[in-house]
Amino acid sequence: MDAVNPEHSPSALTHLRQDGSAQMVDVSGKTETTREATATATVRTTVEVLGLLGSGGLPKGDALAVARVAGIMAAKKTPELIPLCHPLPLSKVTVDFELGTDSVAILATVKTRGVTGVEMEALTAASVAALSVYDMIKAVDKHAVLTDIKVLAKSGGKSGDWTL
Amino acid sequence: MDAVNPEHSPSALTHLRQDGSAQMVDVSGKTETTREATATATVRTTVEVLGLLGSGGLPKGDALAVARVAGIMAAKKTPELIPLCHPLPLSKVTVDFELGTDSVAILATVKTRGVTGVEMEALTAASVAALSVYDMIKAVDKHAVLTDIKVLAKSGGKSGDWTL
Amino acid sequence: MDAVNPEHSPSALTHLRQDGSAQMVDVSGKTETTREATATATVRTTVEVLGLLGSGGLPKGDALAVARVAGIMAAKKTPELIPLCHPLPLSKVTVDFELGTDSVAILATVKTRGVTGVEMEALTAASVAALSVYDMIKAVDKHAVLTDIKVLAKSGGKSGDWTL
Amino acid sequence: MDAVNPEHSPSALTHLRQDGSAQMVDVSGKTETTREATATATVRTTVEVLGLLGSGGLPKGDALAVARVAGIMAAKKTPELIPLCHPLPLSKVTVDFELGTDSVAILATVKTRGVTGVEMEALTAASVAALSVYDMIKAVDKHAVLTDIKVLAKSGGKSGDWTL
Amino acid sequence: MDAVNPEHSPSALTHLRQDGSAQMVDVSGKTETTREATATATVRTTVEVLGLLGSGGLPKGDALAVARVAGIMAAKKTPELIPLCHPLPLSKVTVDFELGTDSVAILATVKTRGVTGVEMEALTAASVAALSVYDMIKAVDKHAVLTDIKVLAKSGGKSGDWTL
Amino acid sequence: MDAVNPEHSPSALTHLRQDGSAQMVDVSGKTETTREATATATVRTTVEVLGLLGSGGLPKGDALAVARVAGIMAAKKTPELIPLCHPLPLSKVTVDFELGTDSVAILATVKTRGVTGVEMEALTAASVAALSVYDMIKAVDKHAVLTDIKVLAKSGGKSGDWTL
Repeated sequence: MDAVNPEHSPSALTHLRQDGSAQMVDVSGKTETTREATATATVRTTVEVLGLLGSGGLPKGDALAVARVAGIMAAKKTPELIPLCHPLPLSKVTVDFELGTDSVAILATVKTRGVTGVEMEALTAASVAALSVYDMIKAVDKHAVLTDIKVLAKSGGKSGDWTL
Repeated sequence: MDAVNPEHSPSALTHLRQDGSAQMVDVSGKTETTREATATATVRTTVEVLGLLGSGGLPKGDALAVARVAGIMAAKKTPELIPLCHPLPLSKVTVDFELGTDSVAILATVKTRGVTGVEMEALTAASVAALSVYDMIKAVDKHAVLTDIKVLAKSGGKSGDWTL
Repeated sequence: MDAVNPEHSPSALTHLRQDGSAQMVDVSGKTETTREATATATVRTTVEVLGLLGSGGLPKGDALAVARVAGIMAAKKTPELIPLCHPLPLSKVTVDFELGTDSVAILATVKTRGVTGVEMEALTAASVAALSVYDMIKAVDKHAVLTDIKVLAKSGGKSGDWTL
Repeated sequence: MDAVNPEHSPSALTHLRQDGSAQMVDVSGKTETTREATATATVRTTVEVLGLLGSGGLPKGDALAVARVAGIMAAKKTPELIPLCHPLPLSKVTVDFELGTDSVAILATVKTRGVTGVEMEALTAASVAALSVYDMIKAVDKHAVLTDIKVLAKSGGKSGDWTL
Repeated sequence: MDAVNPEHSPSALTHLRQDGSAQMVDVSGKTETTREATATATVRTTVEVLGLLGSGGLPKGDALAVARVAGIMAAKKTPELIPLCHPLPLSKVTVDFELGTDSVAILATVKTRGVTGVEMEALTAASVAALSVYDMIKAVDKHAVLTDIKVLAKSGGKSGDWTL
Repeated sequence: MDAVNPEHSPSALTHLRQDGSAQMVDVSGKTETTREATATATVRTTVEVLGLLGSGGLPKGDALAVARVAGIMAAKKTPELIPLCHPLPLSKVTVDFELGTDSVAILATVKTRGVTGVEMEALTAASVAALSVYDMIKAVDKHAVLTDIKVLAKSGGKSGDWTL
């Protein structure tokens, strides 16, 4: 029943109670399982910037390493950033970059053995890695855009595994 | 000379030194001025979700207030998240939402009296507000996408004012 | 024996060792159970301020939502604030407000599946929510007072359930 | 005019805009001056606990030093805890304790050279020091109460100096 | 096989993947056990400073209590400081000081019930306690040196117990 | 007079008051100047590990970039880690590595326009970079030692410039 188990209701914002007030929902009854999520983000910039970031698929200097570390550390900060997120013991975080002609695609994967999913952690890792890329290229291309930030796949939770 | 003053070079990643290693660049010689930046982010979701978030342009319950607070607090956390960002004494942060038919547009404005611009703070505020919106709607629309995250306007720095 | 197991001694400060030095006490042998605690805080202010915060029991604008988010996020920060507190995976946090004639009562409930109680987390949530209320009303009533901050109920630990 | 300069209105919550939404208000036009604030908090507990904390006015062991450090560090964390607080470069923090018969009085003084007052920093220091005292005595007196948390004096701002 | 189980390879940096990129390694398959580590650090300074810090083996004032609290709180911050460290639920932290003739030896012990070892937490606690000692004595001896920071003993993990 | 101006007394711990209690000392009267400090740390390990970290003076993979970012971010966290440190607006941070035969030397330089020196920030950057190096090599050499952590040079403060 939706009324009984609002967490799986397709038609309500579960972080808000009946009266509209926000809460960190009770997950103490949920089962601890191994959960994984993958999210992506894209930084659209210029051919010139891509030339500065790498060539032949290989990164130049520390730029991508800085963004990778930023993303990994941000995954750990997710419950500090997203007010209603539960703290989780992350057991793996990877952040990868694919250099295109005029864009950088970022892929973040997060794993936990916990009671809630880790899609917010994966999205936060991808977003902050993308923000860090922007920070490094903004002197050359202040009009770069962060786009297509979304969850690509999720597994291990009650709601079933899925891949985009 | 660009070689002498890499900070104003249009063709180099100023956060990387000659050997490719990252640094937090020296801004001790820059002038303190009042600086402002505005950034935007969009959460693309469904008509159903928009109905849950508000009606007649008015928000329902705490959802947008939670995302607004998340964005404001994230602006203050920018130097903790973006590795090479300088800490700045923020003097104003606002985060606004415009509810569309099937999307939420976020506008974040940040002001400082400091020696570097605040576009990273504005982008971080907009991004984290957007991530918080996703967190609250993900039970209803796990395929929501964060998009069009970019700087709209900047003023007060040496590189000149501009608006998109 | 109390001497052997100082944690249950009613007559010693368990965070201090024999020589008076502080420690984060060893809880590795304690059993993980579902634990809950509720704490309260009161902000005493004026009738005028209560009129600004809400009417007919309904809050006006974002003020209480800001204080609620502050309280929820502070619960997660407890081990960063209280030096000898153990980090715990919080599984639920709620913060509620009751508007009186000239005071605001705050109720914070925190739940965990962990090895120590969560009364510090509940007290921290209530206190920081109260501080945030003060922050928002201080321009109108700088003499507002935070008072009656205490634990109301605790359950799930070895020392037995209790309610004030 | 209040409408023009809501910051000095005695009859509005300055952190909320016309439409009720929260903001970190613009202080970029305010003058930097040396500002100071003193706040107090009291922990009401038992004669037994006071005997454990000290005797003859002298503290035993690290207990009060732990609470003092907690208060000083919390003052620096104020803008992370109170959502709409501006970050400020604190130039002095002291936290003092006065042991009574069955209560501990805490006095926190904070100073800055900045554009906003430091009463929130002083209140946060006093509150977190009090929470830390509770944490250390809760095994002996779980019914201890934090009370009378208020600003005692403020100087250096535009609104004039005052002492309670 | 190293290729299969790179974590126990004696000849590779396990935090780096084949292509040299950093990751937070996957520990979701590791068994949760009680783990403990002890680390040490030494601050070499002058006889004069030792006289200010204590006499007859007894500390004067709050100096060592401040450094002890700094070390305990830093242990909890380890995953925020060390980019590829996993967050762990610490179940015990102690920090001890031994005053020599012209040096202070620090001993930090950390315990967890978790899936990875806590040597980084013990090293971080010892290092930050040592940095705090330096901070307090630097006005008297700016040439003090932190030295001999190392793990002394580790137990509870798969790689076997050991003591230096 | 030392009694009048304890900050320049060569014979007292300025962070402790007459009664031994700790404080964050008042620096509101100090002049804002450009200040710089350089600190060093050394990680003593094995020839084998040095081979894994780099060859021909060039780093392999992300290892040193990770440690560099850790050091830069730690410099910004100094006032959160060192209890009595004042927050400062850092205007430059660099972290460099020199690979020896069986050791890694780390050099951290920090600059500010502020009222106190930045030697704690430089020491913290060097120490945390060294801890991050240890974290990455510990699977290969658990007996690596962090040593020789000290301030090498300081300029811009009232106490005069100096170099070791």
